Amino acid sequence: MAVKNAFYAQSGGVTAVINGSACGVLQTARQHVKEIGKVYAGRNGIIGALTEDLIDTSVESKTAIAALKHTPGAAFGSCRYKLGSIQENRAQYERLIEVFRAHDIGFFFYNGGGDSQDTAYKVSQLSAQLSYPIVCVGIPKTIDNDLPITDCSPGFGSVAKYVATSLREAALDLAAMSLTSTKVFTMEVMGRHAGWTTAACALAAEHEGDGPHVLLLPEVAFNEQRFLAKVEESLERYDQCVIAVSEGVKGPDGEFLSASGLKDSFGHSQLGGGVAPFISNLITKKLGCKCHWAIPDYLLRSARHIASDTDLQHAYAVGRAAVEFAIAGRTAVMPAIRRLSDTPYRWDIIEAPLSEVANQEKLLPPDFISDDGFGITEMARRYLAPLIVGETYPPFKNGLLDYVKLQNLSLPKRLTREFSV
Amino acid sequence: MAVKNAFYAQSGGVTAVINGSACGVLQTARQHVKEIGKVYAGRNGIIGALTEDLIDTSVESKTAIAALKHTPGAAFGSCRYKLGSIQENRAQYERLIEVFRAHDIGFFFYNGGGDSQDTAYKVSQLSAQLSYPIVCVGIPKTIDNDLPITDCSPGFGSVAKYVATSLREAALDLAAMSLTSTKVFTMEVMGRHAGWTTAACALAAEHEGDGPHVLLLPEVAFNEQRFLAKVEESLERYDQCVIAVSEGVKGPDGEFLSASGLKDSFGHSQLGGGVAPFISNLITKKLGCKCHWAIPDYLLRSARHIASDTDLQHAYAVGRAAVEFAIAGRTAVMPAIRRLSDTPYRWDIIEAPLSEVANQEKLLPPDFISDDGFGITEMARRYLAPLIVGETYPPFKNGLLDYVKLQNLSLPKRLTREFSV
Repeated sequence: MAVKNAFYAQSGGVTAVINGSACGVLQTARQHVKEIGKVYAGRNGIIGALTEDLIDTSVESKTAIAALKHTPGAAFGSCRYKLGSIQENRAQYERLIEVFRAHDIGFFFYNGGGDSQDTAYKVSQLSAQLSYPIVCVGIPKTIDNDLPITDCSPGFGSVAKYVATSLREAALDLAAMSLTSTKVFTMEVMGRHAGWTTAACALAAEHEGDGPHVLLLPEVAFNEQRFLAKVEESLERYDQCVIAVSEGVKGPDGEFLSASGLKDSFGHSQLGGGVAPFISNLITKKLGCKCHWAIPDYLLRSARHIASDTDLQHAYAVGRAAVEFAIAGRTAVMPAIRRLSDTPYRWDIIEAPLSEVANQEKLLPPDFISDDGFGITEMARRYLAPLIVGETYPPFKNGLLDYVKLQNLSLPKRLTREFSV
Repeated sequence: MAVKNAFYAQSGGVTAVINGSACGVLQTARQHVKEIGKVYAGRNGIIGALTEDLIDTSVESKTAIAALKHTPGAAFGSCRYKLGSIQENRAQYERLIEVFRAHDIGFFFYNGGGDSQDTAYKVSQLSAQLSYPIVCVGIPKTIDNDLPITDCSPGFGSVAKYVATSLREAALDLAAMSLTSTKVFTMEVMGRHAGWTTAACALAAEHEGDGPHVLLLPEVAFNEQRFLAKVEESLERYDQCVIAVSEGVKGPDGEFLSASGLKDSFGHSQLGGGVAPFISNLITKKLGCKCHWAIPDYLLRSARHIASDTDLQHAYAVGRAAVEFAIAGRTAVMPAIRRLSDTPYRWDIIEAPLSEVANQEKLLPPDFISDDGFGITEMARRYLAPLIVGETYPPFKNGLLDYVKLQNLSLPKRLTREFSV
């Protein structure tokens, strides 16, 4: 029997290292030609499967595939598109089977966060519910670090390194300016519900008095009076205050401090702007000092130039393991990172069932949050510290990050029917 | 006759490489002990001179001084404080003389932008107007790149590298998301009046279609209709649009698009927030597509981790040249960078009179701006390109940028009189 081809796609918000996972998938598949045929990438995630917009990765050179390791973004395009249930959206799943059958696809790899693992899980049900045999493996990725089971999610370590490095640098800037000018600097970071990225900002501080002095975590309801008292305390002690705030901080009423009212296609409120200026205006008004604020937004998650080498190794390893799992016939699973020790940092890869991964959000545990709610504990620091270790600089050309643009040649269509999404 | 001591201070908004200039001053002074005594740093700029808050740099180790090259912020503290005219603020200048005399200071080095060069120029007039002999040399520094005479200003090259690198990364992110989610990404950069930093964003684009697709320069009055047409054109051609906008963009009425109404101590309007969300809201409202926006603010100017090696070399060279000028008895001057050729990039240091540097702002010349006003010309690209070349990574410890915290020991005060600023 001829070997089956594989489908690989990238989904959800992209990261600095998701292409590292793609590299892991493609390089490993190429080492197993007796078990896996060609790898077809979906252009823009699952949409590429639905619309039969498949990319033939076999024409890409070894050098190009290797360069994915230092290329941010998603080499094959991503999407925010969630499949409905098989029961209610049978036509979508029948279309997937039609496309998979047309291109002899027997392996499905889907690289994304919680919503994407839900898609992977649903596709894995095709075998049992619609009698189409497919081996389906999810590949974890999310800067939010909120996937369950896995000790951390590829993408997060690089964001953690970016925010901690940037905040350390900005804190040195603020310290130099605070006598006569700006006394408060606030940085707003991504993270809708889970405070992992905000917590990682705390790594910037090494000595007593170093910023950040205050964290505003989405797990802790915002209390204006207690917050202002905390800022004042920092101003009195250090004549400055560095604040890291999550975009998802909510007031005592459970409402986001600043929501634009828009929703994304997953139905989530569209944030990413407005908490930092809100906080800064509040401080200027109530405490009367000059504030600066930053919202790095996409810069934070695409910053390949300051990626964590540990994170890149994770990203590559889960891509490689996904192919190995698939070859071993494991389906409806996701490679997860298991921590074996903090110091020295040691880890391996285990298997997580997609049924337990999909649609779960792992929040910051209570024992990671300091008693006053404005900082993290030693336990949190021990968890976070290894994830940012190691630099893995991309090549630079003419002073700028060099990256690969794959050919991304479309596979000739074999179906006559169009399918709109 | 015993050699005179030197005063060195840092002023204005800090940069990723201003401590590189400090390193140049201190290392060069230490090589000329027969001509220059100790170097006393002013704590927080000229304020340290007025309050007799002087730091004895001679106790710092060679290693610590060398580490200034990879330490962002201002090692001795900066200030936003402008001296008035000698005629109207005689007491201030008499105080400076009192402090300089008490510590046998015969050399004055002031490291900053246009306002700071004005301070340096005024101090240089002490010799003639108040008969206190002092050799006074300004050292250029500003991320705004708006100092005249010098081909570029140390600090700018690193900002240019940061914004171009970040925007290249964010553009790859946007390209991956644009089919089903965000179609427009706007990054707001510093630069009150001069569009150099906004122009540098254009370096991110290498090929036709690469972002940024639209620049909003402070030199070009904002025209809503023309701007929206330009964004629409980009959306039609590339299904996405990357925009770089200066914090200082003004409408046809000459008013800042978004000013908070605050003023800093130099009397400048305090901006740094609000143009990017204004632009994004406008696009969402008029063109109906999802937008993301970022304001890196301090992150942009303190990002030592992605500093330009060319910029660091400039910063060091002007520090070294300042000491050499002073030893040669040159006063009321500033070392300036002269470009000898674009390709290969060659430069040297020349002497600029402070009288011609102080309070001048060098805007983007008209022939650097494209005909439609939304981009830059080839001439601008040739000017900007060499300034971001070369990486000069700082050491990392535990995954984070390592830096030096000097002892900054206060010199014992010799004056009984206090002086408040």
